[in-house]
Amino acid sequence: MRLRNKPWADDFMKENNHIVVQDPFSVRGKWKQLYEKQQNPLHLEIGTGKGGFISGMGKQHPELNFVGVEIVKSVIVGALKKVIDAEVSNVRLVNENAKDLRELFSENEIDHVYLNFSDPWPKNRHEKRRLTFSTFLEQYEEILIPNGELTLKTDNRGFFEYSLISFSNYGMTLEDVSLDLHADEDPLNVATEYEEKFKAKGQPIYRCRARFSS
Amino acid sequence: MRLRNKPWADDFMKENNHIVVQDPFSVRGKWKQLYEKQQNPLHLEIGTGKGGFISGMGKQHPELNFVGVEIVKSVIVGALKKVIDAEVSNVRLVNENAKDLRELFSENEIDHVYLNFSDPWPKNRHEKRRLTFSTFLEQYEEILIPNGELTLKTDNRGFFEYSLISFSNYGMTLEDVSLDLHADEDPLNVATEYEEKFKAKGQPIYRCRARFSS
Repeated sequence: MRLRNKPWADDFMKENNHIVVQDPFSVRGKWKQLYEKQQNPLHLEIGTGKGGFISGMGKQHPELNFVGVEIVKSVIVGALKKVIDAEVSNVRLVNENAKDLRELFSENEIDHVYLNFSDPWPKNRHEKRRLTFSTFLEQYEEILIPNGELTLKTDNRGFFEYSLISFSNYGMTLEDVSLDLHADEDPLNVATEYEEKFKAKGQPIYRCRARFSS
Repeated sequence: MRLRNKPWADDFMKENNHIVVQDPFSVRGKWKQLYEKQQNPLHLEIGTGKGGFISGMGKQHPELNFVGVEIVKSVIVGALKKVIDAEVSNVRLVNENAKDLRELFSENEIDHVYLNFSDPWPKNRHEKRRLTFSTFLEQYEEILIPNGELTLKTDNRGFFEYSLISFSNYGMTLEDVSLDLHADEDPLNVATEYEEKFKAKGQPIYRCRARFSS
């Protein structure tokens, strides 16, 4: 699914260029202007996948604006469909490799970052690829407002353990931790497609919210 | 068991006053002098219970000295038996209410603190009684060496979540986290009696090690 070519994908994204931002690098520093309610906080999801989270959050939080970055074209078209179906006007999507988010967003441009079920890169030699490795935290800190926050959700125990330590070593403060999100039955939790599968299996989902100290 | 009176307990402890420290408040500032190898680091367990952990650690770590504080007399005699059976000379026990540890230990006197399966006090109104509440962290920080460390082990998810946040808010740094200790199969882990029960049930045991920044 992820690797299959979808020749209609480019056309579909272009037809919906009010949602999938074309030439997003040129929007750097001006993201808020893309939304109807420009004064609202802008929340960024890194690795939007099939869009269950961002479309659900867009619906649940009309007081917020959302932007989702996803590198895989065959996946982001699914997210686009969900955003269209949800009939929300506060969600934008970006089909780019977000290797350095500072190329897409300027300082203080983002109010909150979400990492949902990111690739855990379990091998030690791949530590630098984990999206909670210090070089990524540097990026988030720069594009976030002062004392900006990040929410991480994952089913991968090793990745979660690593991330808690990485946040702490970076000087971030833990604001909230759940080691079994669905046992807590948070009524405001918006589940991703991946999360729903794990929930059905009864496996714990881990979530934390951490704040940068600057 | 915990509340039953044991009239022989006092005699048994006095007979073994080389292990159960009599008048421990008078030893404040001079704890290291109680051990054969006075230069070795001194590790403190708060709430020693039946002594499975401290006797096992004493055996596994002849290069360390240990002191265990336990308020319940009918429980600490079990710990005393275990220490005797383990034939270790590097463990001391204290049967006192450790409400303020600074009355028992002076500044920088302790090298490491262990909290094993402490009472989770789950009700919000009892937060101040949790042994990871900020007022307790202040005590640990004071009796610990600079950049001293604390290891927490519990089966209680809510208490562990709370403690991670409390450590973080206090400015401590997470050095190590395990969200399923027995799945990790740490060969050096010494299990408490309580832990063995939970392990047998397949429930996760949480552990973390956190460092004070001063």
